[in-house]
Amino acid sequence: MDERNVRILQAVAELGTGSPDEISEYTDIPKSTVHYRLTKLKDEGVVANDLLDVDLEALGLEITVISEVIAEYDEQYHEEVGEKLAAIEGVNQVYFTMGDTDFVVIAHLTGREMVRDLISEYEAIDEVVRTSSQFVVETVKDEPRPLNDFELETVVGSTADEE
Amino acid sequence: MDERNVRILQAVAELGTGSPDEISEYTDIPKSTVHYRLTKLKDEGVVANDLLDVDLEALGLEITVISEVIAEYDEQYHEEVGEKLAAIEGVNQVYFTMGDTDFVVIAHLTGREMVRDLISEYEAIDEVVRTSSQFVVETVKDEPRPLNDFELETVVGSTADEE
Amino acid sequence: MDERNVRILQAVAELGTGSPDEISEYTDIPKSTVHYRLTKLKDEGVVANDLLDVDLEALGLEITVISEVIAEYDEQYHEEVGEKLAAIEGVNQVYFTMGDTDFVVIAHLTGREMVRDLISEYEAIDEVVRTSSQFVVETVKDEPRPLNDFELETVVGSTADEE
Amino acid sequence: MDERNVRILQAVAELGTGSPDEISEYTDIPKSTVHYRLTKLKDEGVVANDLLDVDLEALGLEITVISEVIAEYDEQYHEEVGEKLAAIEGVNQVYFTMGDTDFVVIAHLTGREMVRDLISEYEAIDEVVRTSSQFVVETVKDEPRPLNDFELETVVGSTADEE
Amino acid sequence: MDERNVRILQAVAELGTGSPDEISEYTDIPKSTVHYRLTKLKDEGVVANDLLDVDLEALGLEITVISEVIAEYDEQYHEEVGEKLAAIEGVNQVYFTMGDTDFVVIAHLTGREMVRDLISEYEAIDEVVRTSSQFVVETVKDEPRPLNDFELETVVGSTADEE
Amino acid sequence: MDERNVRILQAVAELGTGSPDEISEYTDIPKSTVHYRLTKLKDEGVVANDLLDVDLEALGLEITVISEVIAEYDEQYHEEVGEKLAAIEGVNQVYFTMGDTDFVVIAHLTGREMVRDLISEYEAIDEVVRTSSQFVVETVKDEPRPLNDFELETVVGSTADEE
Amino acid sequence: MDERNVRILQAVAELGTGSPDEISEYTDIPKSTVHYRLTKLKDEGVVANDLLDVDLEALGLEITVISEVIAEYDEQYHEEVGEKLAAIEGVNQVYFTMGDTDFVVIAHLTGREMVRDLISEYEAIDEVVRTSSQFVVETVKDEPRPLNDFELETVVGSTADEE
Amino acid sequence: MDERNVRILQAVAELGTGSPDEISEYTDIPKSTVHYRLTKLKDEGVVANDLLDVDLEALGLEITVISEVIAEYDEQYHEEVGEKLAAIEGVNQVYFTMGDTDFVVIAHLTGREMVRDLISEYEAIDEVVRTSSQFVVETVKDEPRPLNDFELETVVGSTADEE
Repeated sequence: MDERNVRILQAVAELGTGSPDEISEYTDIPKSTVHYRLTKLKDEGVVANDLLDVDLEALGLEITVISEVIAEYDEQYHEEVGEKLAAIEGVNQVYFTMGDTDFVVIAHLTGREMVRDLISEYEAIDEVVRTSSQFVVETVKDEPRPLNDFELETVVGSTADEE
Repeated sequence: MDERNVRILQAVAELGTGSPDEISEYTDIPKSTVHYRLTKLKDEGVVANDLLDVDLEALGLEITVISEVIAEYDEQYHEEVGEKLAAIEGVNQVYFTMGDTDFVVIAHLTGREMVRDLISEYEAIDEVVRTSSQFVVETVKDEPRPLNDFELETVVGSTADEE
Repeated sequence: MDERNVRILQAVAELGTGSPDEISEYTDIPKSTVHYRLTKLKDEGVVANDLLDVDLEALGLEITVISEVIAEYDEQYHEEVGEKLAAIEGVNQVYFTMGDTDFVVIAHLTGREMVRDLISEYEAIDEVVRTSSQFVVETVKDEPRPLNDFELETVVGSTADEE
Repeated sequence: MDERNVRILQAVAELGTGSPDEISEYTDIPKSTVHYRLTKLKDEGVVANDLLDVDLEALGLEITVISEVIAEYDEQYHEEVGEKLAAIEGVNQVYFTMGDTDFVVIAHLTGREMVRDLISEYEAIDEVVRTSSQFVVETVKDEPRPLNDFELETVVGSTADEE
Repeated sequence: MDERNVRILQAVAELGTGSPDEISEYTDIPKSTVHYRLTKLKDEGVVANDLLDVDLEALGLEITVISEVIAEYDEQYHEEVGEKLAAIEGVNQVYFTMGDTDFVVIAHLTGREMVRDLISEYEAIDEVVRTSSQFVVETVKDEPRPLNDFELETVVGSTADEE
Repeated sequence: MDERNVRILQAVAELGTGSPDEISEYTDIPKSTVHYRLTKLKDEGVVANDLLDVDLEALGLEITVISEVIAEYDEQYHEEVGEKLAAIEGVNQVYFTMGDTDFVVIAHLTGREMVRDLISEYEAIDEVVRTSSQFVVETVKDEPRPLNDFELETVVGSTADEE
Repeated sequence: MDERNVRILQAVAELGTGSPDEISEYTDIPKSTVHYRLTKLKDEGVVANDLLDVDLEALGLEITVISEVIAEYDEQYHEEVGEKLAAIEGVNQVYFTMGDTDFVVIAHLTGREMVRDLISEYEAIDEVVRTSSQFVVETVKDEPRPLNDFELETVVGSTADEE
Repeated sequence: MDERNVRILQAVAELGTGSPDEISEYTDIPKSTVHYRLTKLKDEGVVANDLLDVDLEALGLEITVISEVIAEYDEQYHEEVGEKLAAIEGVNQVYFTMGDTDFVVIAHLTGREMVRDLISEYEAIDEVVRTSSQFVVETVKDEPRPLNDFELETVVGSTADEE
């Protein structure tokens, strides 16, 4: 994919909008070009829908890695370490858990070289004492819109409790 | 949150669009109501942006659970089991991995009762022989738009390889 | 401790009262004897307070064992297995957990022979596939009245949420 | 539950008595009020019996967590660490074990916020190097009166050995 | 690499010789072509030396996976299972060990698709009950000629014992 | 095996050739002796084929050990530690992996004394914090020529991708 | 060691005596020969003392293996399995434990072939589902006379309790 | 058992002889008393045979504990740590192993108090970083005379290899 397309899609993600005006202003790519390219990306399936959800594989993000990360055990350390993990390129999700692993990290990567980089980035965080990473053989489900995971009444009931 | 809002947001997720026309047709809620309510949800922060990404906590999906699922080891079983896991209410992601766990499952749940249900649903799958679930104490990062995880050149380089 | 004392203390536990009348009726031990013996047990420290909490060590229950119990993984099995575990003599607490152990069981035992019996009872439950038991070297805390574990405001705040 | 009820129940736990006189003196709540409220709490099931055993769920202590705690391995350290663990709010039982975990801790908590606090309290203990906590999905048994766990002859026999 | 080169190199490996005569007879590729191509492969570094050791990366075998394989525990089963594992395409080494893993398997693979195939092949062996595979991030050493791993005297001493 | 044979075979391994000329020059053993001895070693089966692959058992390298090595977790440490591991006598393969072990090491050893030495060598590397070694009961497969592990079309396809 | 020596030493072990009369009767080796050979074995250090404790290494039992054995979990199974394990040649100690391993087995073996046999014997026991064996690198202590492990007063105190 | 018996039996163990003369000299107990008491201990079964092997249970050594001990990983540390472990009262066997535990320790203990002491002694060794101990529920086999574990020909064959 050429650089312009990537810049447009990153503007979409950053700004949280599909408005050609805003994207054009953010990227300095003419508004009509933005419009034309977004339409083409949708036709090609790189962009999945009107809400501009993207297809990771079409972007070359073929590898998914799930890492367990154990860090030094100091008071309140987890906020700091969590943020460092979140800042590594490719890292998409970071969870601090109650189980025997401190953090569960999910990353999308472009290839073997980037796997090596991910491990090096973990090593570069002082507080990290051990990591164990698993290669995902198959992503069976990764729903970008969690509401699709639920029955109507579950969500209605749940939020009702809050009020 | 009242039922109408949930129905509108689920239509958004299902259809992959924010178009009041399409949502109205899908839900039988008048188009103007759709428009008005989406605007209000955005003002309240339940809907995060123009692309209608939703805020899980605002929807009452406060609990996140990460499960490791081990299943019987038969030829090609993993497709079938993976689909059964993906079909459980609340399950958002299902990964088949190369490590010593068969599947890693991430689910969003509304409360303790639903945790119990999740475990019961796992038990109800014949091929599943053991599960271990961890309660997420804190979601440090969960980026709905993975392009925000990358530098421009990484994605450009990656997809360039493909062509 | 002689049999009468044990019968009186078991009546206390069973009936949830320290009333000599009710205990006498339940045990056929004269009311005055019940009263006299309870007073003496309190003086000796076997009974800890007015609420008749007993001292496990004084009763010869010197050994505490914590077991992890893994059972066959079938739908709703855990209720049945949980009840079988709860019915084993000496078993005081049974928890069904989300982690990689199915049940955590805490038992008080009188000696080595009873440890052997506990393991045999586990083995006699069909659904149980593996157990791992740990000998407690020292019980640092075992508070019979959980309210002693809390600050006033924590409990007030917590129950306030419910109303 | 209002503050007065909690104060009365905590006095019961602290003093080990149900005597309105003593509770009134300890709490500065009039004796008649103490009497009236204890009767009402019994009627409502918050207090389970004449011995004033309380119902944890009725008190809003809905969450039970079992933690394994590993601490630095120094001579006699376990007494000190054990006491620090025992002093954390909500912690009900602390066992020092012979197995590959140093301590097993059982805590009752009021909600997600308190789970986070528990983990932070663990982190704040210098000697603690790792913890792993499990969420209890269901408390199958938690008998406040251990004598209910035994046959008559077991306890008679056991204490006879001692004399 | 074109098919002829692969056929020649496989004949080398199969026959254990670099003799153009024998390779030509085995492959039906003219002897002079065999000679010419082997010389060229050596110049290009695909073939490492006079002994025709090949460079795995130059052959596109970029991925190395180490698997632990646990199989059903029956008398003498390990011979049969060992042979099935050895027969999977890409599997280079199979060890039956004394530790808590039955087999350690090392495989060279051409890409993600072949990783998936390897896992499926494992699943297709009836006696296999579980596998855990690790992706090799970096092959630090893989010496095709083990004598390079030793001092002279070590090998002299060792074989002297035998005579 | 006498020292001259070992010196010849180590020259073969080091130089990557079977040429009597080069071996003679490297070892100062007369060329005719080199030729005569290599032929004899082939007849005896110590040398397996024209390509001079050797038989480990015939060389007295009867023991194979697979070690998992965990090292301190510092930035880029793995290169340095990997090289130290690779330099230990008898170590044949060293892999840096993504799983919960840092390195997997495979060594060929001559006897119990050398096993002890291997463990001592690990201990002498400062960054190594723990190792776990497994004794190989049976080497089911150890193919010196990986091309024998593949179908023709797999290798053709794989390298085609590269061009 | 020749067969006669072994027969004499096995008679010693079997009969629990060093009496030349009894050994002679049991083995049909002349009494004077028995006497002469025992004296010589003592001089050579194969027999360690007057109580005829033997030196394992001098007998060629150079390898020690510690195995963890997990067996099917059925009522009272452990007696049967324990006896089968105890009957395997070379097995010296069998413990049924409370931890996550069912049995710990310690065996003395003569060489690699016998290691293979030990594993095969385990496999041949139907109820055994998994084993993990560790090679002992060094036996730091193996005291045949446990009283040497104690202070005088410890043993006096301990048995005093019993009376 | 009274102190004189223990002193006699410890002299037997220490000196490796049953000779009343030597024992008398070592203990200052009259020779005739030594003889009389040894005979009586044999009659009572405390001493098992002519070779004066003792019955651990008869000596009040009722508890057996198997510990895994992990120590700091420094060059040659294992000799020093091994000796410290061997010196702890009650410790009977110490093995340095190749698996993921450094040491396996087997101890005989007189009661709960001594279990606590064992753990404290481990903690007092600086280099020890973690221990995990298992309580033995049943000693299925503990053969003091390993020759009873073997067939005649196994031992003959084994030692023949040595000559």
